Amino acid sequence: MKTTTQKLQDSWVHVPENSDFPIQNLPYGIFQTEKRGASVGVAIGEQILVLEEVARLGFFDDLNIDTSVFSSSSLNNFISLGKKNWTAVRQKLTELLDSENDALQSFKTDVLVEMADAEMLLPVEIGDYTDFYSSIEHATNVGTMFRGADNALMPNWKHLPVGYHGRASSIVVSGTDIHRPKGQTLAAEADTPEFGPSKRMDFELEMAFIIGKNTELGETVSTENAEDHIFGMVVFNDWSARDIQKWEYVPLGPFLGKNFASSISPWIVTMDALEPFRVESPTQDPKPLPYLQYEGNKSYDINLSVAIAPENSEETVVCNSNFKYMYWTMAQQLTHHTVNGCNIRVGDMMASGTLSGSTPDSFASMLELSWAGQKEVPLSNGETRKFLRDGDTVVMSAHCQKGDLRVGFGEVRSKLLPSR
Amino acid sequence: MKTTTQKLQDSWVHVPENSDFPIQNLPYGIFQTEKRGASVGVAIGEQILVLEEVARLGFFDDLNIDTSVFSSSSLNNFISLGKKNWTAVRQKLTELLDSENDALQSFKTDVLVEMADAEMLLPVEIGDYTDFYSSIEHATNVGTMFRGADNALMPNWKHLPVGYHGRASSIVVSGTDIHRPKGQTLAAEADTPEFGPSKRMDFELEMAFIIGKNTELGETVSTENAEDHIFGMVVFNDWSARDIQKWEYVPLGPFLGKNFASSISPWIVTMDALEPFRVESPTQDPKPLPYLQYEGNKSYDINLSVAIAPENSEETVVCNSNFKYMYWTMAQQLTHHTVNGCNIRVGDMMASGTLSGSTPDSFASMLELSWAGQKEVPLSNGETRKFLRDGDTVVMSAHCQKGDLRVGFGEVRSKLLPSR
Repeated sequence: MKTTTQKLQDSWVHVPENSDFPIQNLPYGIFQTEKRGASVGVAIGEQILVLEEVARLGFFDDLNIDTSVFSSSSLNNFISLGKKNWTAVRQKLTELLDSENDALQSFKTDVLVEMADAEMLLPVEIGDYTDFYSSIEHATNVGTMFRGADNALMPNWKHLPVGYHGRASSIVVSGTDIHRPKGQTLAAEADTPEFGPSKRMDFELEMAFIIGKNTELGETVSTENAEDHIFGMVVFNDWSARDIQKWEYVPLGPFLGKNFASSISPWIVTMDALEPFRVESPTQDPKPLPYLQYEGNKSYDINLSVAIAPENSEETVVCNSNFKYMYWTMAQQLTHHTVNGCNIRVGDMMASGTLSGSTPDSFASMLELSWAGQKEVPLSNGETRKFLRDGDTVVMSAHCQKGDLRVGFGEVRSKLLPSR
Repeated sequence: MKTTTQKLQDSWVHVPENSDFPIQNLPYGIFQTEKRGASVGVAIGEQILVLEEVARLGFFDDLNIDTSVFSSSSLNNFISLGKKNWTAVRQKLTELLDSENDALQSFKTDVLVEMADAEMLLPVEIGDYTDFYSSIEHATNVGTMFRGADNALMPNWKHLPVGYHGRASSIVVSGTDIHRPKGQTLAAEADTPEFGPSKRMDFELEMAFIIGKNTELGETVSTENAEDHIFGMVVFNDWSARDIQKWEYVPLGPFLGKNFASSISPWIVTMDALEPFRVESPTQDPKPLPYLQYEGNKSYDINLSVAIAPENSEETVVCNSNFKYMYWTMAQQLTHHTVNGCNIRVGDMMASGTLSGSTPDSFASMLELSWAGQKEVPLSNGETRKFLRDGDTVVMSAHCQKGDLRVGFGEVRSKLLPSR
């Protein structure tokens, strides 16, 4: 790892100051342009490196990989090449993009596309999506609102990473507008439910990791091996209709209050790129059962923020949080998920749960920021919010910073449209 | 519809008496043999009609469909041809297999494979799997055990078809052995959980329908149009580890207690084949909200049974039930699922929930049959069961009968192996 006093490696591709996408990042995505159908790209500065063109020019020939994976409309085939090849391709790209290497540079008009000219698509085909509930601050906040401070956490919460299955079909990429969902809700003091647009539309700031290696049914992944099964991460907005959720969720969990849409950032930042930002996780007390124990630093210092931009108005940041607050690590989540033999597949997505911190300005949903609608959240245009209004754009972003080194995720930006 | 006094149409393929697969059924599946890779087949008697061979011989030429769908390893491409083409292919097969038509019969060695020589595979690629909870008897039984008779049904239960998302990756076809899962459980009166193999292994007798038509995100399917989106049905064993489920499921629902495996019957019986067996559903009181109301008969009279065969011992039927007891219809389930704009995709699977009837011999899980372990369920070999033992094979079967007309699903048969 480079120390902060060393000069960082530069690329011949221009990377603006504070860009999320320096040569140290190299996240993968699927893009298309007017001229090119869906294809694999790597973000660098404000450009996209077109991997099928890099392959066509022969720059991957010595890697002995099937380069047709780069002409695919999802990353699943590339991811399926396995961790050894992810690292080999990353190493090759790091060489090719180095400011002192002009081999690829002479073909730059062939291999680079302006981000401004490209549309980003969903980066993976998602077989299954699981949502965890792994922030102790979020679980405590929500539990306090619903059951009082003394019973905030359920008895199981500190013994296992609580999670549930979500809907894969409705995961969409940043930029996709979301319609306010309709559904059944029970008004306060009503006996019978009513039907109509949700009145308590909310976001949840989460991150998700993408599975990089299949397991067989019956197989278990240990905490020690879990990271071999994780390809990378994205920012995840788990849209929530609180009033629908509240009425429907007993006894089998959230369903229509969640499955109308979840939005993700388009670039998958690899675990290799996140390596410099490893940190300790919160101490776990009580100590979990042996199968959930692990050694080493298995969390990451990732700064997170949420902003709301009302229609025709500027953004207001309403939450600043960090991924490192999460109580259960990704390795523990994955081990728990497979301890019963449940099989996982390349492209599966596993979200963290709402990543609230301990201070009110780090609460990561409107439910918590407005304390179930009891407080107004001020915006810079003079308006306030308890929940989201039609026309609001929600912007979530994430980046790691260590000295001069910044590795970012870009953003997931989605507008809430009126109910159809 | 034929009346029971008319002679039923026969096929030139021999169909044994009481076969689930007469010419009136023609369910679709994916099979493979020693000589042929995964391919689309139709069950008739004890034979499989090989559709890619029927196509190769030109018998589908006048239908103007892309017959490459029959050479696929899943039914998704065929299903995506749409309802009009499902009916056209069914009609063509009904003609070709008729006892008085010898056009295809002269090629019978080319187009038929003995079921005994074939292995059945998972018939569809399942994007998302949803499990409903739509039997009032099951929900009341479980609610009574957990919360007492006065609070058995949650307040929402009669207002909406409660459902939750399950795991698609671990849905397997009949014949796949299942290992007893390990997991966390909380022993009675214990303060902290323990880890080990489940001690309360159970089945749940369900049926599932397969989505036949995509929707876009934001689109809603009405109860009137719902049946256009349903291709067919299978028998579904929703394996459950009750002790794991009990400890983990608050507040977000079942997870590892379910997702280690679900087993389905291999032949998808089409809605066209089930048409003669339409019946009324139970009266709904209170009347549901307008979006959930519907006209006509939207349930089906399908006889269901579960048998347990201990290792090296004969089967004992432990449950006889019927699909028609289900309180919420498939049309209502699908309408509710999409009322918030959640998109559905061809191949998605939606299970009914445990299909218990009102009498104790129709209870459709060991949890209910043994009343949470308070009663012994006798087997014909002299043994008894409260929950399943290692080595037990669970056999679920389903068929419709109206006079001489029998349309069946075959069975889903799976053996419980010891924990790994």
